[in-house]
Amino acid sequence: MKKLINDPKNVVDEAVVGFEAAHGDIVTVSHDPIYIARKDAPVQGKVALVSGGGSGHEPLHGGFVGYGMLDAAIPGPVFTSPTPDPILAATKAVDSGAGVLHIVKNYTGDVLNFETAADLAAAEDIEVRTVIVDDDVAVKDSLYTAGRRGVAGTVLVEKIAGAAAERGDDLDAVAAIATKVNSQVRTMGVALTPCVVPHAGEPSFVLADDEIEIGIGIHGEPGRERIKLEPADAIVDRLLAPILEDLPFASGDKVLLLVNGMGGTPQVELYIVFRHAAAVLAEKGIEVTRSLVGNFVTSLEMQGVSISVLKLDDELTELYDAPVQTAALRWGR
Amino acid sequence: MKKLINDPKNVVDEAVVGFEAAHGDIVTVSHDPIYIARKDAPVQGKVALVSGGGSGHEPLHGGFVGYGMLDAAIPGPVFTSPTPDPILAATKAVDSGAGVLHIVKNYTGDVLNFETAADLAAAEDIEVRTVIVDDDVAVKDSLYTAGRRGVAGTVLVEKIAGAAAERGDDLDAVAAIATKVNSQVRTMGVALTPCVVPHAGEPSFVLADDEIEIGIGIHGEPGRERIKLEPADAIVDRLLAPILEDLPFASGDKVLLLVNGMGGTPQVELYIVFRHAAAVLAEKGIEVTRSLVGNFVTSLEMQGVSISVLKLDDELTELYDAPVQTAALRWGR
Repeated sequence: MKKLINDPKNVVDEAVVGFEAAHGDIVTVSHDPIYIARKDAPVQGKVALVSGGGSGHEPLHGGFVGYGMLDAAIPGPVFTSPTPDPILAATKAVDSGAGVLHIVKNYTGDVLNFETAADLAAAEDIEVRTVIVDDDVAVKDSLYTAGRRGVAGTVLVEKIAGAAAERGDDLDAVAAIATKVNSQVRTMGVALTPCVVPHAGEPSFVLADDEIEIGIGIHGEPGRERIKLEPADAIVDRLLAPILEDLPFASGDKVLLLVNGMGGTPQVELYIVFRHAAAVLAEKGIEVTRSLVGNFVTSLEMQGVSISVLKLDDELTELYDAPVQTAALRWGR
Repeated sequence: MKKLINDPKNVVDEAVVGFEAAHGDIVTVSHDPIYIARKDAPVQGKVALVSGGGSGHEPLHGGFVGYGMLDAAIPGPVFTSPTPDPILAATKAVDSGAGVLHIVKNYTGDVLNFETAADLAAAEDIEVRTVIVDDDVAVKDSLYTAGRRGVAGTVLVEKIAGAAAERGDDLDAVAAIATKVNSQVRTMGVALTPCVVPHAGEPSFVLADDEIEIGIGIHGEPGRERIKLEPADAIVDRLLAPILEDLPFASGDKVLLLVNGMGGTPQVELYIVFRHAAAVLAEKGIEVTRSLVGNFVTSLEMQGVSISVLKLDDELTELYDAPVQTAALRWGR
């Protein structure tokens, strides 16, 4: 294991210190318990958005804290859910009285710990709604999951619901928007290589030199099948087909196409993937009106990619376009 | 070699098609010869900025084409300079009559080909100035280089000179700003792993499981020394010491600290590096007033990092803060 770390036990603690040092204009960081909050939180009158989960998926979630997106993010240990305590602390820190939306990727530990934190917050008279993100079409149930997994679509839920909160929507309305985004986004990924969790020191799975895992989970959980390496276009076809069938997407739809790097993928490869994905969509009469390409929901140094397609309407497009100012996503200010 | 590509010969051509599909709101792409231009180029009355070089360093340079930064970028084959033809074509396409600044990383092929293109442009009455970027303190001369190499500092030259052009500075003034940024920025990098050039199919160098290369070049060229893996903080000390001695930076200086991932480095590691680099600077009385963390000048899937320190003054800070709208760097609009 070769990593730019000190003690594997301190990876998250140290990264969060660095994050605060780099982005102190946007965030403040609580170190005990660990959470990252928007610098101007609580924002009076605004519904607060809180998300979190195991670390190792950066920039998710801390990189999306700021104006127009999350009010707080709770980074757990690498690939491990944060406990209810820091979730509760973050929830209390950012609530302005307008209520808090918990955005939770569908993993058993995250769901349970956010639920406990929401119950504890309710006992302190903080109104909490929860939206579970489960955009991954690869597998129905899996390791760590009852039902589908929450993956790269999470960033779109956070962006669009964050814009709804910023324009003044109330808690029910923000939760409805988040639910709508989750219902209209589908994702599937592929891994070329595994990744190494620092405190484990070994890859969590092994792929032969000519093998890839179609439908990989963001913790390296098994996907649909392990196949021999194919040209990029063939791999894109394998990822897009189940995505497009699932909603289903139809000719005439306008969509956002997100090509997400898993952390170790060169950017040229992401654009080669985007090229073919956009061509396949065009062929089916599906119009890509918004695009996002880069590392947004990663698995440490894993090489691979996920493709997400979100069906847009005028409202979602307007909210997606609205200004955002976070460490990892920024426009309009 | 496991890559998300089709034919290795088509990597750059296909990536550029994907780039155009994803960012057609910002850029237009010429496919023969290949260059990426700002969508609204030529911008009347504005000095144009043109850069380029071998591909494989994305988002450099195409990701920095747009308002407030480059007017055109010419991607050569992977790790290989573009020829004079596309450089000339891009230069002609973006010149509005106010002249063109060529920003060239100091590699023999790039310098020669941009020089030839500048001569050809001059013969067509286009005024061209050239600024060579050579911010890498690791080695004096190297493979492909007479003098120091141009590395991650290039992105700061492009950002700040781009803002000067956008505010209306004339060609001499924009060239002077670019020269000033280059004179005040110092960089050094480290590699944990090599990368594989697609058409080569093999790593360009080999590192043992416990070895790292201090002072690596962005094409995998040898640096200062190959050592055993050390904790991140010790590696940061090795990179920062020669940087700080070289200008030299002094107590009281305000600086921009850029921690740049080489392409395959997990973001948590970049922030662990940032944390210690910021602490070392603080200890020396050097104030980090601007920060940039992410993948900006990469070497395909190489794992590693470079640290750049740019000495700021009020003018450079104001130009750095000015709005920018490119695929890979965006704020203020």
